Amino acid sequence: MEKWLKDDERLDYLLAEDLRIIQSPSVFSFSLDAVLLSRFVNIPHHKGSIVDLCAGNGAIPLFLSARTKAKITAVELQERLVDMAERSVQYNKLDEQITIIQGDVKTISSNLGVEKHDVVTCNPPYFLAHEASDKNLKEHMAIARHEIYLKLDEMIYTTGKLLKQGGKAAFVHRPGRLLDIVTAMRANRIEPKRIQFVYPKNGKEANTLLIEGIKDGKPDLKILPPLYVYDENGEYTTEVYEMLYGQQ
Amino acid sequence: MEKWLKDDERLDYLLAEDLRIIQSPSVFSFSLDAVLLSRFVNIPHHKGSIVDLCAGNGAIPLFLSARTKAKITAVELQERLVDMAERSVQYNKLDEQITIIQGDVKTISSNLGVEKHDVVTCNPPYFLAHEASDKNLKEHMAIARHEIYLKLDEMIYTTGKLLKQGGKAAFVHRPGRLLDIVTAMRANRIEPKRIQFVYPKNGKEANTLLIEGIKDGKPDLKILPPLYVYDENGEYTTEVYEMLYGQQ
Repeated sequence: MEKWLKDDERLDYLLAEDLRIIQSPSVFSFSLDAVLLSRFVNIPHHKGSIVDLCAGNGAIPLFLSARTKAKITAVELQERLVDMAERSVQYNKLDEQITIIQGDVKTISSNLGVEKHDVVTCNPPYFLAHEASDKNLKEHMAIARHEIYLKLDEMIYTTGKLLKQGGKAAFVHRPGRLLDIVTAMRANRIEPKRIQFVYPKNGKEANTLLIEGIKDGKPDLKILPPLYVYDENGEYTTEVYEMLYGQQ
Repeated sequence: MEKWLKDDERLDYLLAEDLRIIQSPSVFSFSLDAVLLSRFVNIPHHKGSIVDLCAGNGAIPLFLSARTKAKITAVELQERLVDMAERSVQYNKLDEQITIIQGDVKTISSNLGVEKHDVVTCNPPYFLAHEASDKNLKEHMAIARHEIYLKLDEMIYTTGKLLKQGGKAAFVHRPGRLLDIVTAMRANRIEPKRIQFVYPKNGKEANTLLIEGIKDGKPDLKILPPLYVYDENGEYTTEVYEMLYGQQ
């Protein structure tokens, strides 16, 4: 085990996928949002090219690898997270399917090619750069969570560049940014087609937004049934439990 | 009763409000959407001015009258529906509170005054003029249901004109038009603040959208808990039952 891990890293289980992932409480751990996005997005099963932007420690590429044989390219700005993601890919023997690239999402389409990809996913930094709620975060987490190096519009601009006509983009974000997201999607020829709101529990406002669009798609938006994370007893709902732990 | 009714009209009960409304199966009957919008919108309780556009037979003004002492002005294009709405208002002795105006929403701000109103509600025609799904509708219903004389953008433009700064606009529509609605709202200085999706039942896509915005409001969108119309047995859920029949 030692050869795989550095500092305070752990080798956590992705139980539903029968994979392992390297995480660190002080550097980066994936959240439920990565799980939700990985289950929400429509991907080709057998071939094609998928790009995950703002990949962090590679959770979304790992989750997606269990659902498809398509090639997956993950783009992450921070070297420390790229290093974690690469070791997780190697540990799971997924080097053939998943490629981790250290790079800036703003300019990455010049490396990855314009209109060459079938699917782009992104779990971007959620918070505006000036939002002070977690100023005390360590630098790695601050960059991953705040729009310090990448703004929402820039991420969606790159997504539009990368996607083939008919290709799909799927994002997870906060519901409060819905209008900014759909405006940026349309400005970059990605027509929103499916939205699902995620509610912490029955009777509460939504706290997560899942949205998928199609490049040059025809306007026809569907609002999917709501997804609840916890039931009345504070336990995961069956739907979320199975995403995390597999079908029982 | 005869003095109040014409042709095939009926005097239906609005049970939750203890009011009556004149309807006609061949001309116009209100739908659940009017009930949902009347319950969704935030209105002042004691004073102020509310305008209901595309008022039909006056269902929304009647529902709102049970929740507020504010003056309510209803605008309807079709004389036949204005006549029904006026008789309902008289029957319920609400002439002091509700005024029905025959007029075109596109130009009505010159009569009603610019930036003079606290709340504007609208349950507009849902279907595009070319959508042929119910071409066989009688003319009154076709005009009420299709964008023949009034397009969504025109309705929202007028709403923006009528509202005071800080005034509220609330609409009910189909979820497929969400992006057109929020785009038009922002273009007319109405910032979307609250959205609620209505689902026919658990596990189905939403079929109704309720949205409220504030003129010159600050961006801060909330997605309210979902509302279900029917339960697993095909009965109204408690929430909807109480909207229709009052608390039991």
